[in-house]
Amino acid sequence: MTIQALVFDVFGTLVDWRGSLASEAAEWKARKGLAIDPVGFADRWRSGYRPAMDRVRRGEIPWTNLDGLHRMIFDEMVEEFSIDGLSEADRREWCRAWWRLKPWPDTVTGMTALGKKFLLASLSNGNIALIAHLARHGEIPFDAILGAELVRHYKPDAEVYLAAPGYLGVAADEIMMVAAHASDLEAARRCGLRTAFIHRLDEFGDGPVGVADRARKGDFDVVADDAIDLARQLGA
Amino acid sequence: MTIQALVFDVFGTLVDWRGSLASEAAEWKARKGLAIDPVGFADRWRSGYRPAMDRVRRGEIPWTNLDGLHRMIFDEMVEEFSIDGLSEADRREWCRAWWRLKPWPDTVTGMTALGKKFLLASLSNGNIALIAHLARHGEIPFDAILGAELVRHYKPDAEVYLAAPGYLGVAADEIMMVAAHASDLEAARRCGLRTAFIHRLDEFGDGPVGVADRARKGDFDVVADDAIDLARQLGA
Repeated sequence: MTIQALVFDVFGTLVDWRGSLASEAAEWKARKGLAIDPVGFADRWRSGYRPAMDRVRRGEIPWTNLDGLHRMIFDEMVEEFSIDGLSEADRREWCRAWWRLKPWPDTVTGMTALGKKFLLASLSNGNIALIAHLARHGEIPFDAILGAELVRHYKPDAEVYLAAPGYLGVAADEIMMVAAHASDLEAARRCGLRTAFIHRLDEFGDGPVGVADRARKGDFDVVADDAIDLARQLGA
Repeated sequence: MTIQALVFDVFGTLVDWRGSLASEAAEWKARKGLAIDPVGFADRWRSGYRPAMDRVRRGEIPWTNLDGLHRMIFDEMVEEFSIDGLSEADRREWCRAWWRLKPWPDTVTGMTALGKKFLLASLSNGNIALIAHLARHGEIPFDAILGAELVRHYKPDAEVYLAAPGYLGVAADEIMMVAAHASDLEAARRCGLRTAFIHRLDEFGDGPVGVADRARKGDFDVVADDAIDLARQLGA
């Protein structure tokens, strides 16, 4: 197994979307006197993600990048939560909460070590602007930003994974996909990529969005506790 | 003028392709006992670039990324310079000289300052793998890699510039294109981008590939001596 490049899922795998959004929502709640539960607000936003992507996938709406989908869902939430008096600039600023998601505590240390040995790219459903800002903000050392927007397909559509070897200039089996979600890795594996699972047992808490996947040794090429453990297992 | 993001030409503007390739060619000359002039070798390689791109532009050959064009030109040069005994692995390794081009002495300092204020992306004819490796090698702090490969058109085709606002999530006139070549900036300006010219009087030396452009104050939104001067002029 000769790995040249690692490609990463981002939401949940590298950053804590739930804790980060809840902390911004708590601030808005205080500032605007809103009657919202911050964690519930974060969960509601994330739970709109799959249905919105599916509308793109079925062709019900034209290609819309993830910033655009987050905005669509947010506009629905403004109605649902009866949030009054938001200007267009407010709405735009609130949606940029997704640009400020915080890395898990091990992410930057682990990726800095991995970056000494491998080319690192995102392979996320997030669009380039979103991931570029998030990486700047969290100091995540990506060498390149790939993913859904470049092929106008959302994971787990095969197009996203199949494009990575060409963009990175290496063979599919020289790329390892890193994710905390088994379905993402299974789709990557069907496209010939190597796979590394990272446990993120705190991603969803006990909320309604999902239950954290678990993997056992042998389920994927590497099964790691976190990004630092992944670096150690890959000799980086 | 509110600038959110800077997009950069790379070859000549941020890195010294001629000096870098000549220095690698000098090493090959010594190692393999070749009868080549290292600087002439660099110039020959670069002079194949425009004709090769034009073949893609006219549809004579299918879309080929810049690593692919560099390899095509190199294979011609192996014949022309009667270089014997190169394995496939040798050829691949030699072509990766383009991944190791050295930044001009002011590039990293200037871009590090600019990066504190603006989102920084490449907007080059180089493909993602090439620019990602070159940026790693030279420690050029790009937040994202855009350019020709994403739209399968080479600059100065408008498609390359027109795609930047969508990928960066800002309006065209919030993006400033930075280049040492007037034709690149003129094409960017026609697509609504702001423009910054950097003087690179040493790019071509007195070789056959070209003559360095010069600009006067007012020719572009900013006219700078180098990347550090650009940062100063943009308040970064």
